[in-house]
Amino acid sequence: MEFTVQQIADMLGGTVEGNPDRKISTLAKIEEAGEKALAFLSNPKYEPYLYTTSAAAVIVGKNLQLKQHSDASLIRVDDPYTSFSKLLEEYQKALIAFKTGVEEPAFMGANSIIGENFYRAAFSYIGQNCKIGDNARIFPHVFIGDNVKIGNNVVIYAGAKIYADTIIGSNCTIHAGAVIGSDGFGFAPQKDGTYKVIPQIGNVILEDNVSIGANATIDCATMGSTIIREGTKIDNLVQIAHNVEIGKHTVVAAQSGISGSSKVGNFCTVAGQVGIVGHITIADKTIIGAQSGVSKSIKEEGTIIQGSPAFDYKQNLRALTVFRRLPELQKEIDELKEKR
Amino acid sequence: MEFTVQQIADMLGGTVEGNPDRKISTLAKIEEAGEKALAFLSNPKYEPYLYTTSAAAVIVGKNLQLKQHSDASLIRVDDPYTSFSKLLEEYQKALIAFKTGVEEPAFMGANSIIGENFYRAAFSYIGQNCKIGDNARIFPHVFIGDNVKIGNNVVIYAGAKIYADTIIGSNCTIHAGAVIGSDGFGFAPQKDGTYKVIPQIGNVILEDNVSIGANATIDCATMGSTIIREGTKIDNLVQIAHNVEIGKHTVVAAQSGISGSSKVGNFCTVAGQVGIVGHITIADKTIIGAQSGVSKSIKEEGTIIQGSPAFDYKQNLRALTVFRRLPELQKEIDELKEKR
Amino acid sequence: MEFTVQQIADMLGGTVEGNPDRKISTLAKIEEAGEKALAFLSNPKYEPYLYTTSAAAVIVGKNLQLKQHSDASLIRVDDPYTSFSKLLEEYQKALIAFKTGVEEPAFMGANSIIGENFYRAAFSYIGQNCKIGDNARIFPHVFIGDNVKIGNNVVIYAGAKIYADTIIGSNCTIHAGAVIGSDGFGFAPQKDGTYKVIPQIGNVILEDNVSIGANATIDCATMGSTIIREGTKIDNLVQIAHNVEIGKHTVVAAQSGISGSSKVGNFCTVAGQVGIVGHITIADKTIIGAQSGVSKSIKEEGTIIQGSPAFDYKQNLRALTVFRRLPELQKEIDELKEKR
Repeated sequence: MEFTVQQIADMLGGTVEGNPDRKISTLAKIEEAGEKALAFLSNPKYEPYLYTTSAAAVIVGKNLQLKQHSDASLIRVDDPYTSFSKLLEEYQKALIAFKTGVEEPAFMGANSIIGENFYRAAFSYIGQNCKIGDNARIFPHVFIGDNVKIGNNVVIYAGAKIYADTIIGSNCTIHAGAVIGSDGFGFAPQKDGTYKVIPQIGNVILEDNVSIGANATIDCATMGSTIIREGTKIDNLVQIAHNVEIGKHTVVAAQSGISGSSKVGNFCTVAGQVGIVGHITIADKTIIGAQSGVSKSIKEEGTIIQGSPAFDYKQNLRALTVFRRLPELQKEIDELKEKR
Repeated sequence: MEFTVQQIADMLGGTVEGNPDRKISTLAKIEEAGEKALAFLSNPKYEPYLYTTSAAAVIVGKNLQLKQHSDASLIRVDDPYTSFSKLLEEYQKALIAFKTGVEEPAFMGANSIIGENFYRAAFSYIGQNCKIGDNARIFPHVFIGDNVKIGNNVVIYAGAKIYADTIIGSNCTIHAGAVIGSDGFGFAPQKDGTYKVIPQIGNVILEDNVSIGANATIDCATMGSTIIREGTKIDNLVQIAHNVEIGKHTVVAAQSGISGSSKVGNFCTVAGQVGIVGHITIADKTIIGAQSGVSKSIKEEGTIIQGSPAFDYKQNLRALTVFRRLPELQKEIDELKEKR
Repeated sequence: MEFTVQQIADMLGGTVEGNPDRKISTLAKIEEAGEKALAFLSNPKYEPYLYTTSAAAVIVGKNLQLKQHSDASLIRVDDPYTSFSKLLEEYQKALIAFKTGVEEPAFMGANSIIGENFYRAAFSYIGQNCKIGDNARIFPHVFIGDNVKIGNNVVIYAGAKIYADTIIGSNCTIHAGAVIGSDGFGFAPQKDGTYKVIPQIGNVILEDNVSIGANATIDCATMGSTIIREGTKIDNLVQIAHNVEIGKHTVVAAQSGISGSSKVGNFCTVAGQVGIVGHITIADKTIIGAQSGVSKSIKEEGTIIQGSPAFDYKQNLRALTVFRRLPELQKEIDELKEKR
């Protein structure tokens, strides 16, 4: 896709200063922008780049007074940051939207239906009795098992795998390689020390506006449902075990793991590489620091914890400060003992 | 699949109380069961749910005396838990077994053979010279490289990748996205600080009854074999490096990693997010707590360790208790010094 | 592939002692070698195996004097280790090289070109406007999005997914299930506690000789590029976030994660399960111990750190030694207080 500076200015209701015919094919930060890029200037700290940038054009404020000459064409608007953000969104939507129809060979089983304006890529697989809403974007090598229900405007990237009976809301994004609905890790120890498989016949429910990262894994429930509620964002390589329930608008950063049957509240923040044991409950608005190991329920809203095992983050920070000085502490005690 | 209450009762050798014609299409916990579900009541703690459940039917003990009216049909048996477990197993088997034959397009290379009663899904790939046993279930986007040998009753879920020369026993389950046989991370440092690839020409052997979780990775041996012995269960996102050997009936929970050439014993429990360094040996029946880092061999059977680095879990627990109090400890020392 | 002992000796410029007609079909360690295997003896420690091995042949030094009889044929060369390494390399190359051409069905979009001597497996997908160099090996279920550029001699194993606009240098290896170019985890918190997606329109650049492990994930930049420089090796299940830059000839071991916009230097070693926070810089030749959490920039070259949070590894080691004794320390303090 290529636009002229004038075309972009018209979209934004802005005015052009300089050459309106220069071509724009991408968006970039002002400090990194190349020849065919459009950048923006909002924070005055970055103004020096305006005079050195090789961008084709820069979106600037209506009233910005130039201190030197800029080679870039300028597009003057009320709020450069908001204008640029809008363009970014439109750009990403356009990147996804332009593919439509079926690329052959693609597979769709009996009694499955898909709404209007879809993209079903080559080598994508949809099982039987599936119901998929409008504007679906289903990339190559996506697997969707039988009886799966999916809302509108869902993007499923290459090679994501969705087991049978999963339910996915609208406006969800599933990134490449994510696995949704794999068997929970349930094995009953036998008297002789061996393990017997506990059948896992539940499913996974993702509500609306959920995002699942690349190669993340979400196990189905033993019975019932593993649930990720509305607006929650799961990062790459996260593990969500069977029967877990994660509330609304919570974020779980990369490589964290939540063990079986635990419940995480709404508006929580789980940083990277965190582990949460099974069968506990985490209150709303809890913040869990990176690499923490959470072994007990958190009952109070807004708690901030850190450490493995995790406890109050300020107390943890103070303990860590002394931890580094432990050899000195030991020495001080030894001296006290001697001098006693 | 739909059954009547009477059909289920006949399967279990039970007797029906209430409407024998109600339809059942799924199994559920009594506290969560919906209209077409069958639940069970074993633990008296859950009896109150019997009088409020919307389940179509509940499996109960022969001698249970109702304290109130239940809307559900009852199926009376000797041991409700065992009866329900049997149904669960049959249900899961049925879910996997009903697909058979080849869905086109599927790929199978020259000189490869597959036993009776198989399912080879669309877009599944089997290389050359493979030998696969009876009752194989090979889901979409599964990759099986050349010369792979697989036993009977193996289920390989969507998008699992099995490199050439892998050997897999009978009754194994490989979950979606798992990678078996990728190159070990072997690079020889050169004098100039760069790295030279060390060829990895070994393979992976999974013995019978092994289960591999979604998106787990098991590297092939540099030479020889990386081995997972009989009955061992590996959870999602686990990393097993080259030349590792894991004994029989051991469980490794999600996101743990075992480094090159280490040997883990039989009947061990490795909790989640554990790291084990390379070239060590872990004795049988060792239990390793979550997020532990194991840096030394464990020689005694039945050892329980925790921490990073890991040591005796009781000692670790006691040290952690004092760790939280470190700022107070510091203060106590300071006071002792002053008052001396 | 099968060779005679004589054929191997000719390749290596060596001389045969014993039967020159025995057949060799694999390479193995001398202590594990089976009937049709070729082994080598370099370290005198392993000489006893020479007299018990069932290998078809063993590569030995020109001047080795046998202390007993060996059943194996001997191939005498100047430097057994170097000769064996050469064979290993040739063997691995041959394993990959023997497949060529297109296996149908394979997909390649409009305006995409691929160089000479390629392998495009069944169910592999190449988008539009891609440019791929010579000797490419593209395994089944590989996804390559639109506008991707790839150099020469690149091997992309089964089910690896490469998002649109990625740039990959020559001699790179991408292992099965790796995801390159997924959206960065960028969400702007709104006043009501919900999150708004920040469009991620950048790409990923892998320079020459880069290796990416199985099921590793590398996010694209928000704008600009996530960059992995020349010769760097990334292990399985590693997470590289948006806008990260990793220098040349650095190794990152399994399950480590590097957060958004951080820069790791050249010749660094990042051990397994390490976490690095966002927006920091790690100096060249830094060594980061396993399971460390790096929360601050490292400014000095050659720094060695360990711990969560990480600091000087020797200091950490000393602190950990005292940590184990914390209950005793507490006791000593209590005694001092009493006896005061």
